[in-house]
Amino acid sequence: MSTPRATAVAERIGRLGTETAFAVSAEAGEWMRLGHTVYPFHLGDMDLPTPENIVDAAFRAIRDGKTGYCPNGGIPELREALAADVSASHDVAYAAENVAVQPGGKPVIEKFLLTLMDPGDEVLYPNPGFPIYESQIEFLGGVAKPYGFVPGEKNFLLDFDAIEAAITPRTKLLIFNNLHNPTGAESPDEEIQALAELAQKHDLCVLSDEAYWDVRYSGRSRSIASQPGMRERTVILYTFSKKYAMTGWRLGGAIGPRDLIAHIATLNVNQESCTTHFIQWAGVEALTGDQSGAEGILRVLRERRDAAVDLLRQIPGVDCYRPDATFYLFPDVTGLMERKGLATYDELRRAALEQTGVSFCTRLHFGRALPGEQKAYVRLAYSGISTELIREGLGRLKDWAR
Amino acid sequence: MSTPRATAVAERIGRLGTETAFAVSAEAGEWMRLGHTVYPFHLGDMDLPTPENIVDAAFRAIRDGKTGYCPNGGIPELREALAADVSASHDVAYAAENVAVQPGGKPVIEKFLLTLMDPGDEVLYPNPGFPIYESQIEFLGGVAKPYGFVPGEKNFLLDFDAIEAAITPRTKLLIFNNLHNPTGAESPDEEIQALAELAQKHDLCVLSDEAYWDVRYSGRSRSIASQPGMRERTVILYTFSKKYAMTGWRLGGAIGPRDLIAHIATLNVNQESCTTHFIQWAGVEALTGDQSGAEGILRVLRERRDAAVDLLRQIPGVDCYRPDATFYLFPDVTGLMERKGLATYDELRRAALEQTGVSFCTRLHFGRALPGEQKAYVRLAYSGISTELIREGLGRLKDWAR
Repeated sequence: MSTPRATAVAERIGRLGTETAFAVSAEAGEWMRLGHTVYPFHLGDMDLPTPENIVDAAFRAIRDGKTGYCPNGGIPELREALAADVSASHDVAYAAENVAVQPGGKPVIEKFLLTLMDPGDEVLYPNPGFPIYESQIEFLGGVAKPYGFVPGEKNFLLDFDAIEAAITPRTKLLIFNNLHNPTGAESPDEEIQALAELAQKHDLCVLSDEAYWDVRYSGRSRSIASQPGMRERTVILYTFSKKYAMTGWRLGGAIGPRDLIAHIATLNVNQESCTTHFIQWAGVEALTGDQSGAEGILRVLRERRDAAVDLLRQIPGVDCYRPDATFYLFPDVTGLMERKGLATYDELRRAALEQTGVSFCTRLHFGRALPGEQKAYVRLAYSGISTELIREGLGRLKDWAR
Repeated sequence: MSTPRATAVAERIGRLGTETAFAVSAEAGEWMRLGHTVYPFHLGDMDLPTPENIVDAAFRAIRDGKTGYCPNGGIPELREALAADVSASHDVAYAAENVAVQPGGKPVIEKFLLTLMDPGDEVLYPNPGFPIYESQIEFLGGVAKPYGFVPGEKNFLLDFDAIEAAITPRTKLLIFNNLHNPTGAESPDEEIQALAELAQKHDLCVLSDEAYWDVRYSGRSRSIASQPGMRERTVILYTFSKKYAMTGWRLGGAIGPRDLIAHIATLNVNQESCTTHFIQWAGVEALTGDQSGAEGILRVLRERRDAAVDLLRQIPGVDCYRPDATFYLFPDVTGLMERKGLATYDELRRAALEQTGVSFCTRLHFGRALPGEQKAYVRLAYSGISTELIREGLGRLKDWAR
């Protein structure tokens, strides 16, 4: 039975990317099954439980019969709670109609692009960065224009010149992930301000990916949406995943200008009807109830960050910032690779896994290398590994490096 | 602050449809708030609780820490359970890799089209039918080619001649919703067989929307996927929503050829990471645990169907089949409209709501009228209204018609 044409995939499927980090996860799993100890720094997932009050709210909602369909853009109570939360944290006024609840943060990326990007439109996005930006831009027919980072004093900075140089008359959208995966970087005030001015000068609409907004250990998060003139051209990606250890619950939201949000909610009608009804009530409790669970999560993460940074800095050939936010580290391992005579990222990753059990992603899991890129980086996530195992694993990596 | 271009929506947004039934729901709600009784036949939602064993399984899964990410295409246990269930009911062999778990049935429509339809490809779909077919075909750049139904002896039949006549060299896909929303129709064996032959003759790939597969009161559901040669060119849309009263949980699946399912799972990576983790464990319990909950749901629905059909048949100017499946009725109301001197669907709907409280959708909520369409139909859903209120409401409609 030959079916040559019927099941031939559409041309766009050839442009669809993925998260190659899943392959690292699979390899680490395979290594474990062979009886080896693995120190999992490759995961962006969390090993911490969702706070009890949030779990209880979900249980109550199921018992109360919140198991049928609900409004496509979310229950009014959650839209209002999210609007209030983001208004307060951003010092910008949002109302319920500025919010469309989503099954996670990731759906906001697709819906932002579907709503605003025509085929051929150019979209600026960070590289290294969350790989789904590039995948969805290209899948949906846009032109992906990467911008990089340069090492700064406290952390990486945007390669601002590169951003400006990349802008053409076809550039319509800018994806900005302050509190950045994979680097943990965040922009100083003047950088955010300059980026806002650039967006207005070139009439760009911005996706502000704020997935790690509340995952911070000191200081205060800042958003491009709070800059003068930016509220009307920014869509915020909000997610409950990290702050409340709810990655597998799938709850997030798009927050932005009312007209765009209405289109995004119509995409919800078409794509998923609604986000799981009772989980939205858990979200209301997360935002408005007792915050000690979120605070506890943050305490654990801070301890892990310090343990990891302290040890990484003792490894010869490794340089590492101590980010104030996110649960990622992006150390420069150029020296380490030279010491060990390893020529490629893959050799480094395999050697570290097999000789120390430490498993991590490399720069290449977050985008193709940019022209002129000299230094080598890896990404360590400390959201899915205990402080004790961080010390043990990075201790072994240190011994190996020496 | 003028932002003329940045927030201008993409061209495709102009081609995005919606479910206009939500407007009916809003109107009925408004009428209720004014103090009137409303008999809600417009909803495809269910007023029945999810069976206890399924709820308990969800609770257990949360307590067991199933709150982190899980595989993009679904947990192996649910993929296996779904493959086993559908293999048994379809008499076709599916394995776990033939299944991609989805947040509902609706996501299968978009993912099927994204995977297989290039811009300009023609897609046959039922009209009247679930409005999202047409919306997504056009939104994603395809050409929507509707096919209708003709009254048969037991129920509506496919307008087979129209299907055949509509096929051109650009026709690539066929959407077939046996156990049909809104008519409640299902194809006799020979019709399914003829459709399967047509699909193979013209090398079409088929989306078999089986959302109501298990919502049946007598007889046995049949799938085009079970026809010789069709397994390799059919993607089944499965949903837990109706059988287990889980509409607001958002759990479903795409089942089909392994290569297509792998692409669909890569779309899951890009669009939503995964379906809610602990809800998938509830799905395992639904499929493999005690079925008395689902049986109870069916008993209630059967009673409602009979009450509704019996009363509708007493209304002068109304003709109604008694479908063996789904929870929809699609009576011919041509005579009723003539009797009452109502010229348009909207006049009928408003008059019935305001003079009897009975709220329903009309044929136009399920697609634009086809050329030559003479008779008038409305759709009554009995999934969200008790037998008592069915009798009361349709009794009032009967009095009004006389």
